[in-house]
Amino acid sequence: MNRPEPRSELRKPLPANLLAALQARLGERVSTSSAVLEHHGKDESAHPLAPPDAVVFPETTEEVVEIVRLGGQYNVPLIPFGAGSSIEGHVLAIHGGLSVDFTRMNRIHAVNVDDLDATVEPGVTRKQLNNHLDGTGIFFPIDPGADATLGGMAATRASGTNAVRYGTMKENVLGLTVVLADGRVIRTGGRARKSSAGYDLTRLFVGSEGTLGVITEITLRLYPQPEAVSAAVCAFPSVDAAVRTVIQTIQLGVPIARCELLDALTIKAVNRYSRLNLREAPMLFCEFHGTAASVAEQAQTVQEIAKELGGLDFEWAIQQEDRTRLWQARHDAYPACRQLRPGNRAFSTDVCVPISRLAECIAESNADIAKASMPIALFGHVGDGNFHLVVLIDPGNPADIAEAEAINKRVVIRALKMGGTCTGEHGIGIGKLDFLDAEHGAAVPVMAAIKQALDPRNLLNPGKVIR
Amino acid sequence: MNRPEPRSELRKPLPANLLAALQARLGERVSTSSAVLEHHGKDESAHPLAPPDAVVFPETTEEVVEIVRLGGQYNVPLIPFGAGSSIEGHVLAIHGGLSVDFTRMNRIHAVNVDDLDATVEPGVTRKQLNNHLDGTGIFFPIDPGADATLGGMAATRASGTNAVRYGTMKENVLGLTVVLADGRVIRTGGRARKSSAGYDLTRLFVGSEGTLGVITEITLRLYPQPEAVSAAVCAFPSVDAAVRTVIQTIQLGVPIARCELLDALTIKAVNRYSRLNLREAPMLFCEFHGTAASVAEQAQTVQEIAKELGGLDFEWAIQQEDRTRLWQARHDAYPACRQLRPGNRAFSTDVCVPISRLAECIAESNADIAKASMPIALFGHVGDGNFHLVVLIDPGNPADIAEAEAINKRVVIRALKMGGTCTGEHGIGIGKLDFLDAEHGAAVPVMAAIKQALDPRNLLNPGKVIR
Repeated sequence: MNRPEPRSELRKPLPANLLAALQARLGERVSTSSAVLEHHGKDESAHPLAPPDAVVFPETTEEVVEIVRLGGQYNVPLIPFGAGSSIEGHVLAIHGGLSVDFTRMNRIHAVNVDDLDATVEPGVTRKQLNNHLDGTGIFFPIDPGADATLGGMAATRASGTNAVRYGTMKENVLGLTVVLADGRVIRTGGRARKSSAGYDLTRLFVGSEGTLGVITEITLRLYPQPEAVSAAVCAFPSVDAAVRTVIQTIQLGVPIARCELLDALTIKAVNRYSRLNLREAPMLFCEFHGTAASVAEQAQTVQEIAKELGGLDFEWAIQQEDRTRLWQARHDAYPACRQLRPGNRAFSTDVCVPISRLAECIAESNADIAKASMPIALFGHVGDGNFHLVVLIDPGNPADIAEAEAINKRVVIRALKMGGTCTGEHGIGIGKLDFLDAEHGAAVPVMAAIKQALDPRNLLNPGKVIR
Repeated sequence: MNRPEPRSELRKPLPANLLAALQARLGERVSTSSAVLEHHGKDESAHPLAPPDAVVFPETTEEVVEIVRLGGQYNVPLIPFGAGSSIEGHVLAIHGGLSVDFTRMNRIHAVNVDDLDATVEPGVTRKQLNNHLDGTGIFFPIDPGADATLGGMAATRASGTNAVRYGTMKENVLGLTVVLADGRVIRTGGRARKSSAGYDLTRLFVGSEGTLGVITEITLRLYPQPEAVSAAVCAFPSVDAAVRTVIQTIQLGVPIARCELLDALTIKAVNRYSRLNLREAPMLFCEFHGTAASVAEQAQTVQEIAKELGGLDFEWAIQQEDRTRLWQARHDAYPACRQLRPGNRAFSTDVCVPISRLAECIAESNADIAKASMPIALFGHVGDGNFHLVVLIDPGNPADIAEAEAINKRVVIRALKMGGTCTGEHGIGIGKLDFLDAEHGAAVPVMAAIKQALDPRNLLNPGKVIR
């Protein structure tokens, strides 16, 4: 976890003049109440609480500019805050400062059905956007499980269950409005489907975790609702058989939309949490998008592959209601697993490896799981080679934390040796700085040089991504 | 065209010590012969010749490091050179210096069929890679027409006919080895399908046109060969009807693999050049990839849309031979158009607009074409909203150049007003610096700050992208 040093007790309190200036500008939309500070000092990770000194709730890009300028004037860190659903400590105010909460910047500025794009404020959540799109025949596919804000998803290069078909935020952000550290506002990218006009600043800010600029507007790519959708679940005699089914599916070019593995322990947790009755064995949850004929053909192909590899209980769910229930259960895997030891926190690993190494990587990780002192569930987006170990820890127990960190390290080093990455979708935050070094070595100083060029005083989400 | 100032006659000749050091290291692989210099001082654009002072032919990343270090030591510009198929002057040595020719770095280091990726040197061309992949069941789809090098394609964020289905180089470069301006070697990205590990340096270097670092290795995403491929051509009573067919096709979510518009003049040129007998009317060339059933269904859908919009002579080409002939003709559109006025050069525009504005943008551009004094063909990747005007000019005639530049400017300003970009796939090079300002305004100084951070002495392809 590479936990940061506890916040220095020596750091200065927020300058009274800064607070007064913020209040003069934002009125009630500045808070220093302890409940609000605490809420903004934690996320879904097991990292210890690190509250900011104040929370501001801007409503416009112009207000963000003023906040950034005031922060700069008083040398105070700024930490963007969306839904707080990060699991890498992105929103923790480890050096104090101002948490910039985007709850009130949740307007959908434009939806262009003909062009399959939308422009939204960063506080819009993915469910809010899709509810807004209801009835238009188009949708936004990226789905990390949590109802995250689109600003947070862009900032962490999020993905989730649909990435195997629709890509990650990297592929689906067309443009951004960004407030830079000195208060300048820039617009990156645009609404054209492709462009070779200069450096790809959009992709630079996507995944920069709030450390290079503050995102205040996002233009997203949308997709036609598929004519038909079907889902399938299939149990397997082993994780290996499930993974090999996925590999063959991808290699055959089946345009599968979702392809998720849940191990037996996860299924057990999901059965309890979501009152399902699935066979407690490794299981694939798949979804197919296309025309009715194409969806049937895709499912047929996957069923044949699964059968050959020993798949059991292959079941289709064509009805919306059944599919919703199934995917709700999948999305609830994280809270469901947490219930395996009530009161515990979940510590999640997030490696992603080339798919040819996935079975081996999971098998070796299962050996780690077998030796662990706590329950560890394994599930993930296996179509991309991405999977999570959800390690249940008592955050008050240093032995638990140490063991979880050791397991994470083993999994990461294994994945890196296999040509993989330490984080498929959660980001670096404060927990993976060492692993970023291990993975990217000489490229890390280049990242630091870019940070230095764009935020020379290190006021934008300091301590995340770059030391 | 914003043509650069002619090379300063005051600039120093290449230092004799540098030449000696290069020769000591590379032997015969340093050239100052006038034929070689001339070859490296031009591309496929109408920009005037700008030869380098010497050309080096490295064979390894280590040799590139030494070349970069020597260039730095003697303060000499370095210009990467691939196939010379740029049409924005990227390879022109407008400030003199060393052209770094990648012809000899054309090895394919690895092909991972299971993982659908390959790692290649920058001098490998796209056809070379696909020939190498022949028989493996996988292929590399990005196809800009010319048999460009993959290094050049990565550096310019190239795309072409398949982008509507498979994306551009942005989506298909997984990782890079890059030699930085100070000789450091970094590895960006990796072989995992997705990663949230730090800033997306891969996407920063893709499209940076050799100005931030020298690419010496590229890991590419590959795709399963579709089980079935079919092509279709259809003539239309108007460009507008053709474009509206495309819009409806995209909006319905038909996963069309290629979708190209050729106007009547282009068809006339293509008929002559490729000895075809197509109706001389606006025409769509489409290609469908998938299973046999899916391909038939896609073609059926497009045929129905086309019919409703007045499409004529809808013809399928399922046989490989017919398809090859068709796409060869499409790819030869550029040289075919040049034959409309033999001896002329082609000046190509490259705007890309949101698809809802495409018909309007093309209609207004057709009004420009009608008023022009020279033949101008129009074709492009309309599935992405990207199209080209190929303006035939006598590069020795200043009036021709001025008229072409004026037309380009009108088209670009029109596209920008419609939310589009000045370049969909050709890049900025030396000809679009003003348009980059017009399109990205305040973001351009951010690009310059990144350039300054990574290449403070402005020795990497100076004068391209950033002034």
